[in-house]
Amino acid sequence: MAAYALAMAAANKEDIQAAFDSLAATRPTAVNLWTGLRAVMSAAPGRAAMLGAARAYDDAEVAAAEAIGQHGVLLVKNGFRILTHCNAGWLAAQDWGTALAVVYKAARAGLEPFVWVDETRPRLQGARLTSWELGCEGVDHTVIVDGAAAHMMKRGEVDMVITGADRVAANGDVANKIGTYALALVARAHDVPFYVAAPLSTLDRSTISGDDIVIEERSQKEVTFLEGNGPDGKTVQVRIVPAESKALNPAFDVTPASLITGLITDSGVVDASPDGVVKALNPILERGGDV
Amino acid sequence: MAAYALAMAAANKEDIQAAFDSLAATRPTAVNLWTGLRAVMSAAPGRAAMLGAARAYDDAEVAAAEAIGQHGVLLVKNGFRILTHCNAGWLAAQDWGTALAVVYKAARAGLEPFVWVDETRPRLQGARLTSWELGCEGVDHTVIVDGAAAHMMKRGEVDMVITGADRVAANGDVANKIGTYALALVARAHDVPFYVAAPLSTLDRSTISGDDIVIEERSQKEVTFLEGNGPDGKTVQVRIVPAESKALNPAFDVTPASLITGLITDSGVVDASPDGVVKALNPILERGGDV
Repeated sequence: MAAYALAMAAANKEDIQAAFDSLAATRPTAVNLWTGLRAVMSAAPGRAAMLGAARAYDDAEVAAAEAIGQHGVLLVKNGFRILTHCNAGWLAAQDWGTALAVVYKAARAGLEPFVWVDETRPRLQGARLTSWELGCEGVDHTVIVDGAAAHMMKRGEVDMVITGADRVAANGDVANKIGTYALALVARAHDVPFYVAAPLSTLDRSTISGDDIVIEERSQKEVTFLEGNGPDGKTVQVRIVPAESKALNPAFDVTPASLITGLITDSGVVDASPDGVVKALNPILERGGDV
Repeated sequence: MAAYALAMAAANKEDIQAAFDSLAATRPTAVNLWTGLRAVMSAAPGRAAMLGAARAYDDAEVAAAEAIGQHGVLLVKNGFRILTHCNAGWLAAQDWGTALAVVYKAARAGLEPFVWVDETRPRLQGARLTSWELGCEGVDHTVIVDGAAAHMMKRGEVDMVITGADRVAANGDVANKIGTYALALVARAHDVPFYVAAPLSTLDRSTISGDDIVIEERSQKEVTFLEGNGPDGKTVQVRIVPAESKALNPAFDVTPASLITGLITDSGVVDASPDGVVKALNPILERGGDV
């Protein structure tokens, strides 16, 4: 999306560098945004070349998402109950999604997966988006509050966790939506495999470890107010925290590599480790690509 | 409250046993409800005696809450950042609360406690009630989503956790609001002390372990709908999960004794263990009381 926006800015003879900077600043934690923007910036100047680069990047991301599904489905057994956090489906990533690409490939393979959907406060991407996507795809699912995941694992009702990633550091640490780290800790406590689906565009060798990832803090209003559909079906914003109280809204957290069973990438399932990240990136490195 | 209701039923010459049964059934997980109802049932029949028993039980609970604060405050150091879940304040338990009794005693002792308030989905008791109570008491606090607690601990910003309890089993396992178990797991992972404030009326020697505690499942509407104050200040209910999607709503979870640093009871701070539970109950047992 941002890649197209940058190509459009070029078409409109805007200041390309300024457009790059402002688009890149919209999401400091996610890295594939940068990757897409860089792909367009490195094209020959001018509308046609940059739009072509954006289209090529988009096509590659669609192929990557489908490849993630193809690799990931090998980890899924018949009737598996998969827990996911946030939205890592086709609403967030082209055509297939990342974590949900695995679910969709499993469904198409007749494995009848079931999905526990973490509602994912504060923005409720699970409650609103993932549930809707799974409904569209005809995948059986149930929404739970984020705090209930540990309880469901203790009851033996979760076979694996798959989340997406906003950025994977060189050592395999993963930045993702707030709540992912807690989920990884509770999965480990119950010996539930914890996988992260990550296209190569989210693997960032220039970030040495998770400690180097800037965690974006968003407006406290995302916590103190909440949006939903009112009785008349229209979107309504309601206040849920007294006006006198503060809230803090770290939008992401970092899950250390040691808690991650594996990274499901478009070039295969690899360990969340320095070697695993290099192994995943090898196809690009061998082409002499910049990662 | 329920104890008074039962005494009132007696006054109105209703079927006392039927009133007891229906009041007891309102909350299958919490145990101090039963304790209060039993206190009234064991009084001599008739309005005056039963109302007297309800008043005596109420007074004893107020004293218990204050005693919890007095014992717990000894664990709090100057400027401690205390994380709590749900509402265990005076809105939930007489005059002082349980977990928050410790906070209020610390504030009165000049220790300037700060409180991280887990919003506590689905009912948002933290976001709505605990934050409001702390505001009334002038205690500095900040609301976070439940999924952010682990992140705050990793950042070194949490000194201790104190929650309330709906029931403490004979072995020290604790049933409390959904999300408590996950919180105990993430606290352990960060070596953050995890205390449970529990009046003796919640200690249930007839429940051998947490495995024997019935976890109430409430309406999925508590997850799929959410209530807050609309733009005009009026309470509005909004839908946050598509109508086609299901939700599951386990209202409580069980935290094993092994994750609990200590139980803060009205007779002192004890280990979450069979010995600790007996030690806490000793003052009652020595009086020949029924626990």
